[in-house]
Amino acid sequence: MRVAIVGFGAVGQGVARALAEKDLGIRVTGIADSKSAVIDEGGLDLEAVLERKQKTGLCGERGESPLSVIGEAPYDVLVEVTPTNADTGEPATGYIRTALNRGCHVVTSNKGPISLHLPLLQSIAGEQGVEIRYEATVCGAIPVIHAIREGLAGNEIRSIHGVMNGTCNYILSRMEEEGLTYEQALDEAREMGYAEADPRYDVEGIDTAIKLVILANAVWDMGITLKDVDITGITALTPEAIELASSRESTIRLVGEIRPQDEIIRVSPRILRRDHPLVVKGSLNAVLINCDLAGPITLIGSGAGSRETASAIIGDLVAIQRGYDRCH
Amino acid sequence: MRVAIVGFGAVGQGVARALAEKDLGIRVTGIADSKSAVIDEGGLDLEAVLERKQKTGLCGERGESPLSVIGEAPYDVLVEVTPTNADTGEPATGYIRTALNRGCHVVTSNKGPISLHLPLLQSIAGEQGVEIRYEATVCGAIPVIHAIREGLAGNEIRSIHGVMNGTCNYILSRMEEEGLTYEQALDEAREMGYAEADPRYDVEGIDTAIKLVILANAVWDMGITLKDVDITGITALTPEAIELASSRESTIRLVGEIRPQDEIIRVSPRILRRDHPLVVKGSLNAVLINCDLAGPITLIGSGAGSRETASAIIGDLVAIQRGYDRCH
Repeated sequence: MRVAIVGFGAVGQGVARALAEKDLGIRVTGIADSKSAVIDEGGLDLEAVLERKQKTGLCGERGESPLSVIGEAPYDVLVEVTPTNADTGEPATGYIRTALNRGCHVVTSNKGPISLHLPLLQSIAGEQGVEIRYEATVCGAIPVIHAIREGLAGNEIRSIHGVMNGTCNYILSRMEEEGLTYEQALDEAREMGYAEADPRYDVEGIDTAIKLVILANAVWDMGITLKDVDITGITALTPEAIELASSRESTIRLVGEIRPQDEIIRVSPRILRRDHPLVVKGSLNAVLINCDLAGPITLIGSGAGSRETASAIIGDLVAIQRGYDRCH
Repeated sequence: MRVAIVGFGAVGQGVARALAEKDLGIRVTGIADSKSAVIDEGGLDLEAVLERKQKTGLCGERGESPLSVIGEAPYDVLVEVTPTNADTGEPATGYIRTALNRGCHVVTSNKGPISLHLPLLQSIAGEQGVEIRYEATVCGAIPVIHAIREGLAGNEIRSIHGVMNGTCNYILSRMEEEGLTYEQALDEAREMGYAEADPRYDVEGIDTAIKLVILANAVWDMGITLKDVDITGITALTPEAIELASSRESTIRLVGEIRPQDEIIRVSPRILRRDHPLVVKGSLNAVLINCDLAGPITLIGSGAGSRETASAIIGDLVAIQRGYDRCH
């Protein structure tokens, strides 16, 4: 199976490195970053491309655009891992449409196009008889969409609750453990590399809300957008609130929840007993899926990281490959 | 897709009830319990069979044997859910071989045949071009085998650690919470229906060890049997040991672990910090899968129950159905 990778930052390089390490029967025939591209129908030497990227900042020939790979390279699956624009979803959405319209599968980690345009992209994929997969858009390494589609297939999913933002979870864990104020914990998270210079996207709950939009549309076909989510972040939390929770064998976590029967799609800080499965430490993520047969199933794992995100992308690639092998 | 169910106790009835509730495109053409059987090529009325079983204790015509269903009924998948014999694996192994040799898929919750004969059964299935699936043999509702095969596909699995026996976990939770002795907690577990009259299979660690054998052979093709597992149960644990752990923010859990690189396959009581993901309460199960890309992924859920086990069986049925739909 031939794969092209568009976007060659941490995640794109993580995917290339994992594919170079493993013998999965997957050949990478094209790679593009924002300023260069390289195509080899016979299969690129991934080690060489990774080394060039390290040394020069470019994966290939300067002046080539991602579109030369997406529109012209020979591939079966496009791995779209360019930076996220949560407002417009571009240019990623255009890239994905081009690939689907060429009759190619798409695997993406990009929350922009999936949270904004999933129904449209799925309908194009359906017309072309190909798949669009996006496990990496929700909770990094945790195979939550796979679990719902496969292991829990046949279950009616009643609700999903999740601790889905590692930055918030790190801040809340440190406020609880060390009695830090929100500002102190945020500064520490920045120093440790767990928070961006502009952390609003995380701490105001928007990142979690976007993941809820993706899950709501993926699991229940709800057709919602970000404005349908009721969002409260963690910026107003005081050490006193956390201390109060603490005195009751409890703690506070930023929880995203989808409860379709009650028409609730909400992000908010919640008091949870310390032994609740969603109470994870540091930058971990946790997702609790309530099922009619299986009951509550919780998945815990790393929500970020280039290698962890590569795991989700490769899980999607292998799933497509299995369908591909059956048909060829 | 046509399914026959052999074994019509709690799990078999749970599967029938779930299939009756849901429109999965699955038709049940045969059902057998130990004393009776019923076959209908057009699809059985599951509600009627369940009602007859409730009223008479029989699912069908007295005197018919399971073999009349397994050997003669028209079906694509055999759901084998007869009682487990962990020593011989019979008669379930014979049932499964008969179905595979007829060119039919098999889904089972039966630890006997899978822990004793998985390599043989897989080779027969391979020759016949069919599948044998057994998600329900390990940790009830938790889709651990699906997660490893699908969501985490492409990962090298480095190790698995699990709290895999609800009876032990209930006893240990109660010893910790209430300061009970082992015997008091066991008595309570019996009263609550969490422990069998003869609890040795659970409390001596054998049930957990059998699950490790299944995982070791499923995930790493280790070809091991029960005698390759180093087993210590919870029967010798004192309240003092648990109190000591408790004073160190820790607790004790019966942990099964497979670490192939260190050649360790072991069941033993372990001290775990209270915030460790494997520390679950009551009769829950938890499995921590260490992956080269995804890092540690933990799955938590109910390890037993007829509806929960039905969830695992139906997940396997849907997986087979998807392959079946592609080929027909």
